[in-house]
Formats: sequence, C-alpha cells, structure tokens
Amino acid sequence: MLAGAAATHLTVPVGLAIAGLLAVVALSYQQTLHAYPSGGGSYIVARANLGAAPGLVAAAALLIDYVLTVSVSVAAGVAAITSAAPVLLSHKVVLGVVFIAAIAFANLRGVRESGRVFALPTYLFIATFGVLVATGILRWLSGDLRPLPTPPPAATTALTWFLVLRAFSSGCTALTGVEAISNGIPAFKPPESRNAAITLAWMAVILGTLFLGITVLARALGVIPAEDETIVSQIARSLFGDGLFYFLIQGSTTLILVLAANTSFAGFPRLFSLLARDRYAPRQFTTLGDRLVFSNGVVILAALAALLIVLFRGETHALIPLYAVGVFISFTLSQSGMVRHWLTHKGGGWRVRLAVNGVGALVTGLVTVVIAVTKFTNGAWIVVVLIPVIVLGFLAIHRHYESVADELSLDRLADQPPVRNTVLVLVGDVHMGVVKALRFAETLADRPRAVFVETDPARTGWVEQRWGKVSGGVPLIVLTSPYRSMLGPLLDYIDQVQREGPNSVVTIVIPEFIPRRWWQHLLHNQTALLVKGALLFRRGVVVVDVPFHLNR
Amino acid sequence: MLAGAAATHLTVPVGLAIAGLLAVVALSYQQTLHAYPSGGGSYIVARANLGAAPGLVAAAALLIDYVLTVSVSVAAGVAAITSAAPVLLSHKVVLGVVFIAAIAFANLRGVRESGRVFALPTYLFIATFGVLVATGILRWLSGDLRPLPTPPPAATTALTWFLVLRAFSSGCTALTGVEAISNGIPAFKPPESRNAAITLAWMAVILGTLFLGITVLARALGVIPAEDETIVSQIARSLFGDGLFYFLIQGSTTLILVLAANTSFAGFPRLFSLLARDRYAPRQFTTLGDRLVFSNGVVILAALAALLIVLFRGETHALIPLYAVGVFISFTLSQSGMVRHWLTHKGGGWRVRLAVNGVGALVTGLVTVVIAVTKFTNGAWIVVVLIPVIVLGFLAIHRHYESVADELSLDRLADQPPVRNTVLVLVGDVHMGVVKALRFAETLADRPRAVFVETDPARTGWVEQRWGKVSGGVPLIVLTSPYRSMLGPLLDYIDQVQREGPNSVVTIVIPEFIPRRWWQHLLHNQTALLVKGALLFRRGVVVVDVPFHLNR
Repeated sequence: MLAGAAATHLTVPVGLAIAGLLAVVALSYQQTLHAYPSGGGSYIVARANLGAAPGLVAAAALLIDYVLTVSVSVAAGVAAITSAAPVLLSHKVVLGVVFIAAIAFANLRGVRESGRVFALPTYLFIATFGVLVATGILRWLSGDLRPLPTPPPAATTALTWFLVLRAFSSGCTALTGVEAISNGIPAFKPPESRNAAITLAWMAVILGTLFLGITVLARALGVIPAEDETIVSQIARSLFGDGLFYFLIQGSTTLILVLAANTSFAGFPRLFSLLARDRYAPRQFTTLGDRLVFSNGVVILAALAALLIVLFRGETHALIPLYAVGVFISFTLSQSGMVRHWLTHKGGGWRVRLAVNGVGALVTGLVTVVIAVTKFTNGAWIVVVLIPVIVLGFLAIHRHYESVADELSLDRLADQPPVRNTVLVLVGDVHMGVVKALRFAETLADRPRAVFVETDPARTGWVEQRWGKVSGGVPLIVLTSPYRSMLGPLLDYIDQVQREGPNSVVTIVIPEFIPRRWWQHLLHNQTALLVKGALLFRRGVVVVDVPFHLNR
Repeated sequence: MLAGAAATHLTVPVGLAIAGLLAVVALSYQQTLHAYPSGGGSYIVARANLGAAPGLVAAAALLIDYVLTVSVSVAAGVAAITSAAPVLLSHKVVLGVVFIAAIAFANLRGVRESGRVFALPTYLFIATFGVLVATGILRWLSGDLRPLPTPPPAATTALTWFLVLRAFSSGCTALTGVEAISNGIPAFKPPESRNAAITLAWMAVILGTLFLGITVLARALGVIPAEDETIVSQIARSLFGDGLFYFLIQGSTTLILVLAANTSFAGFPRLFSLLARDRYAPRQFTTLGDRLVFSNGVVILAALAALLIVLFRGETHALIPLYAVGVFISFTLSQSGMVRHWLTHKGGGWRVRLAVNGVGALVTGLVTVVIAVTKFTNGAWIVVVLIPVIVLGFLAIHRHYESVADELSLDRLADQPPVRNTVLVLVGDVHMGVVKALRFAETLADRPRAVFVETDPARTGWVEQRWGKVSGGVPLIVLTSPYRSMLGPLLDYIDQVQREGPNSVVTIVIPEFIPRRWWQHLLHNQTALLVKGALLFRRGVVVVDVPFHLNR
C-alpha cells in the first residue's frame, strides 16, 4: 500500500514466496514429528539438542505468541463479523472478550469434547473458501472478472526491497499453526506421529492453496485493504453479492479464526506444564484438572489475551508484527536443534534429513532476521525485550526450586535432634470457643498451659475466676502488659519457653470462629490473625486454629 | 443567586438567623456537656433517653457527616489554595488526597501530639480573620468601602420563601462543630465538662462574630460567589490587594479547613468505638492502637473521605446539602433526649433546663424539616436513604454478636463429651518438610498415622521405600484415587476415622513452606491451600501447618 499502484504487481510473487516458505517449514517439521513422537515442540527439541538456554528462549517466544495468537485471531474474527454487520462495531471489545471466555470454557470442559465442537466449523471453512477460490479463479480464467472500481493507492513512498520484505513478514504469520501441531502430538489418535504428520501435510496444502488463491483474486480484482472491511469480505462481496453465500463466508471466517485462537488453548497450557515439570515454572501448572486439562494454563491464557483485547480496544492489528518474530525464533531454534540431532544420533538416511532441516534452519533463520529488522520499530522490539525478561523469570524459579530441593533432601536427616513441644492455649476471654480449644490442647500434650495477656488489669480477676470453672487443672499464666500491647508479652513468653531446652517447639492453640455468612468473617478472628501474622516468620512456632462453628 | 439582585437585601437577615440558631444550639449543648461528663454525643444521649433505635439513627447520621466533613472541608481548603494560585487547579484531587493522608497520619501518631500541631493554625486563623473583619467593618462604617464592579446577578427565578429557606439551609453547615465538642468531652483536660463548655461558648462567639462580619462585608461589597474564586478570597483581595496579608488569609483559611476535617478524625473513630463497645459495630473498632488511638476508625474515615474526593474530582460542593441534614437529625435527637432526661431525672432547676432543651429540640427539629424539604432533590434524599441502610447494618451486627455470645456461654459447659483426637500427617512426597511435620505430629499423639493419596500408581513404591527411611514406626496409609483426585479419597478417609468413635476430632498435619521472598509464595503450598479450603467448613477437623523455613 505504501508504495502505491507500482507495487501491486508484486502481490503474487510475495504470496508465492510465503507459500514456498510454508512448504519448507512443513517439510522440516515432518521430520521433527517422527523424531519426537511424544511431543516435538521447539522447547523440547531446542532443549534436548542445544541446551537449556536456547530451549527457554524458544519457550518464551512461544508463550508470547500463544497469547498474541488468541488476541489477534479473536480480534480478526470479530472484524469479519463487523465487516458484515457494521452496527456491531461499537461492541467489538465485548464481543472479543465473550469469544475468549467461550473458548476457555470449552477447553476447561476437556480436550475430547472441544475436538468435537471444533470439527464442523473447520470443514465448513474449507468448503466455503474452496468454493470462493474455485469460482473466482474460474471466472478470472474465463475473463469474466472485472476489477473493482476502487482506485489503486497513490504511492506515498518509493518501492524498496525493505518494503517488499515487510509485506513478506506480514504474511509469515500464516505459518504459526505448524508449531501447534508438533507441540501437540500426544493429542492425536495413535499412531500419533503419523497422524500428526498427515495433518501437517494437509494443513500446509490447504493453507497454501487458499492463501495463493486469495492472493491471486485480490490482485485480479485490484482489492486493497480498507479500514472497515477485510480483503476476503471485499472479494466475496464482489463475486457473490450481499447474498447468503457472502454471509456464510464471513461466518466461517469468524469461526475458523476463533478456532485458530483455540490452538493456543491447547499449546499454551501444555508448554507451561512442560516448563513446570522441568522446574522452570510454578509447580501448579503440572496439575491436571478433573477433566485432564491443565486448567491453570487455560485460565491464565484467557486472562492475558482478554487483557490485550481490552487494552487495545479490540484493534489488535498493532500486535501482528510482534507475533511473526516469536514464531520464527522458535522455528529457527527447533530446526537448528534438529540439525544437531541428526549430527549426534545419525540413523538411516540421516544425511538427507540433515540437509532438509539444515535448509529449514537456514531459511527460517533468515526470515527471523528479515522480520526482526523490517518490523523492529513496528513493535518487534517489544518481543526482543520481553523474551530475556521471561527467560530470567524461568531461571529464577528454577534456581529457587533447586535450592529448595537441596534443603529438603533426606541427606540432611541426621541433623534432626528430638523435638520438645510446649502447647500453649491463648485465652482472651473464657467462653465455649476457648473451652473447645483447651479440650483439644489436652489431647495434644500431657501438660498444656493457658496464657492470658492482661491489657486491662480490671478484667483479670474476672477471667481467672471463670477459668477456674473450665480449666480441668490447666494453669492460667497471666502476662502483664504495661503498654496494653497484646503481642509483646506473648512473644517474650515464647522466647522464654524456647530457652527452657534445646530444639524447643511452641504450639499456640487459638480458637477460630467459622461464621456461616461471609460478612460475619469481618466481625471475628482479628486477634487470631494478628497473632498468626506476627508468628509467621518465627522459627519453632506452630499456630493451631481450633475451629468453632457458629450455628447462626 | 437564583433570585437575583432583588434577593441580596436578604443576605444579612439570613445570616442573622443562622447566628441566632448557633446561639440556641450552643446554649442547649452547654447543658448536655454537664449532664453527660463522660461524653455526650447524640448517640449516647439519644440511646440513653429515647432507646436504641433513635440512638442508632443519630449515630448513622453522624458517621455520614464525619465522612462528608472531611471531604468537603479538605476540598474547600484546596479551593482556598487554588483561588490564590490557579496553576494548581489541575492538581486539586491529588492535593486533597495528600491533605487527608497527612491528617490521618497526624492522628495515628496520637491525640496529644496532634493537639499541639493544630493549636498554632487555629490562633493564626482567628487573628487574621479578626483583622480582616475589623478592618472591613471599620472602613464600611467610615464610608470608605466601594462595592466591587461585579454586576449583581440577574434573577433566574422568583424570590420565594423556599429559596430563602434554602439559603438558610446552606448556611446551617456552619454548626457542625458543636456535636464534635460534646462527643469528645473525654479528650479535654480536667475538669472535662467545664473546659468543654468554655470551649463551646468561645467557639460559638468567635464563629458567630466572624460569620456575621463576613456576611455584612459580602453584602457591602456586593460580592457574589464565583466559579474560580471563593467569597472570602474576593473580600480579602478587595480590602488588602494581592499582598502578603491576602496570602496569609488564604493560607490560614486552608489550614483551618484542614483542621475542621481533623475534628472528624477525633469524632468518627470515637463514635465507632462506642458502637463497637455496644456490639453494633465490628469489635476491632474498640481496639486502641499503641498510641491510644482507635486506628481502625482513622484509616477507614481517611479511605472513605479520599474516595469521595476522587469520585467527585475534588468538586465536593455537591455534597454540602447532604451534610446539613445529618447534623440536624442528630441535633434534634440529642435535644429531644435531653428533654426526656430532665423529665425523668429532674434535679435542681430542671424546669429551666427543660425549657432550654425544649426550645433547642423544637428549633433544630424545625430546621431539620426545612433542610430535608428544601434540599431533598439536591441530595438530601441520599442521606434519607442511607441512614436506614446503615442502621439495619448495625442491627444485623448486633444480632450476630448476641447470638454468638449465647453460643459461647459457659452455660453449655455440660454438653461437652471427652475428645478423641486422631493425628494424620499428609504426605505428598517424602522430604525434610514432611519429616519435620512427622516429628512434630509424634509429639502430639502416641500413634499418629501418615496418609498418602495415590494419584499416580507409578510413584507409590518409590514413596513407600523412602518413607521406610524416615517413618520411625508411623504407618503410611495409601489411599487409592482412581480419578487422580487429591481431595476425594482424603475426605472419605476422614469420614471413616470419625466414624470410629463418638466426638472424634481429626487433626491433619501439613508441612508449610515459608519462603524468604514474596514471589516465592506463588511457587509453594498450593496443595496445603486446597486441603485447608476443602476442610474449612468440616466439623471436627483441625488443620495444623508445620512451618518449614526456607533459607534461600
């Protein structure tokens, strides 16, 4: 567009270059699928062959991309709807968030069901776009196609190789689906590798054909992108008018873009679980929910993607440049990993395989550089900054888990002297909650003690007298508190008990009220909270809440 | 203003009516101060003489007013600054919030210190305003005062009694300080009642004089309120020009308004503590902080007032109508309570005292009606709606505390059968954290049991083998979990243990990691949290976290 009418003759060559790149990447990944049958995402391949750091870089790039895929695909799906029904333009943020919530919900219900939900729209998309492209090409070949009256854009800048490469970079986002397949091999029916490879091949052929077809039609019709209408919408409208088929095309575009978002909902939680398994991410991401879904990952992905939609007010075109960089960084690392793999493991026909992956690594590496350079000021720099930040996060988590594992090692078993435990019941007032705590404490220790902090000397006699009725022989130790402080005297007394002998543990028993309604929580347990907070980082102190369930 | 130039001759009569009202209220309250030497706020007086409901209505009205006083006074103080320095107009929200934070901080430091901080500005205000009024009146009497060139406002509506009463209502906000003194008697030096009465008298005289003086000057100079400059600012500027004294006036106005906000910081927490003592508010409001300040009340008041400043973007004129209603509702209830007090208690000269408070009750009751009617659509309706809501809240809290007191009563002591306690150590993995929890559990019970939920059968053998190294004879009970659920089998087992005998308590011992940095909390204790959440409302289950302090 920037280079004007003079550049439109490059539309088809650039399209062909992208289709060629798709072929190279698809071929390279065919080999990865067979070499890593239990899942061959870039993180796995790069980590296994190149080491931890390149693996983590690939992982960081992919996590960013999964989030961007969801936001951009959903925003584009919403754009297909608003092209057909402009009245909805003002609701695009809400529509986007609703779509994301719906996909997240489908995924939390489980993989099997979501597979079924998503098959029909895929076939619908392939069918309607097949008809669109076939009709268009046939009419073009028979000379029946007249260019639209849209004027070719005026050149605002000279046509340079830089611009050509930038157009090429923009198109490269079409390739992101490849990584999703190789990362998700275990989700296929057995034989997993073979089925994944077949799917990848079909995807490359269908995607390549439709992409080239649309490119040729756009050139033949002289369509250029408009603010309020997508290219596909313009082509479909000029071929079929505003009839039923036009709305079918727009509808299936929306659905397929929503499904494109869905691939991230498989990939993101799975990659996070791999990182968590290797101790680079919080352990809870390895937890499968009741329906065998990594629920934490699904929720976080949905939240981040929805946040981007809201922040960018549904206009996520700006994010597209960010997203090609990430994919190609991970492609390059994965392919380089495969080159190393063949050099190390050899095996039948390894020279040919080496050559295929070598070409793949070289081409994707080159494309990475092209995208990073031509799109740097368009936002690619954000990814370049973000990846190291995320990788440092992974490494910090890893270091922490490693040092915890060391501290928890049973090699330290000999260090443990026997434990002397003193059980103290904290008494603020003498009531049935305290009595319950006292009876409980009596089961824990032969000689528990009760402790009362005297903040108001006038009350002490009364408390002691009531204690006499319930004590069962447990002594009430009164701690004076000249400054009305509750915590100070208690902490001093704990110190004193711990000095009575080595490896001394003090167990503080506190009654805790469990109210029946949420707002009643605000009316209780303030002292217990205060004591727990003050003792959290004290060593050798265990606080036990004895629940007292309120009936009303 | 609405009635135009024709109405300006009413400025002074309306001002006189307000000053007269101030005199009536101050006289009535003199008697309250002596009758209730330990604090005679409307809540106390109404509750003691009229019953709980009128007391709570007075309390709700006052709490609303304290919050409004802070917001409105601080906003007006900021307006005095921006009248003098218009460049600050765009920062008024920030200025307001900073002032509130500063007052709250001074109050959290303690009453004595804040008294000292606030004495100087008060004397400065009285001195500067005294000079302003005296100079102005002298020049007016000597005929040296020329009206400002501001045109008198054009009448936009007819002058009616309704409008006159509305102007009167607006002025009535000047009286709010009276309640603060009678509510705060204990804060005075002994003899408290006498000192409070002297203060109240001086306040009424000074306030009345300055108020009337400013009213007369405004009329003489023909000043009318402007958007961007206060009346006092206009008077001071026309009398003294833009010199040092003008800035002194504006500065001391700001300071005194900030101090007006400060009276709420004494009154609000004290009233809340009285309500909490009577079980109408959460108990923690009775807690004095280390510096004998009801810190919770101070923090809540500051938060609410700052919220209003932010919500209204520093333009809190809209709140002024709300705030006269509250004060006069509480005046009326307090005076009516005093009438009842004299009728019941009699005592020397009770007939005269009855007459004084009767007149007070009648006048303030009338003013309440006038304000509620004339300001109803200006926002007074909000207070009329809010008071019952708050009172219902007080009553709900009261009912809850009463029923808890009943459940906690030692009368139920006989119901307690002896407790059978079974201690279970929850094992997820065998590491030093679990070993520490196990050693602790051994001090609590003679025969603790360890429980392991088998979510992955492949790990069980390995866990059992490692358990053998640390068990010390404690048996490891393996619970199978066909659906990988952690909680289900555990809950079933707890049921089973509790069925083993009557009054059975199960104590679950869990290791809890205490990390050194906040972000590391996200990496630990997920299972412990899950278990605690699931067991919170189960009766007869106590969860004990045994802390394991991480060193790195």
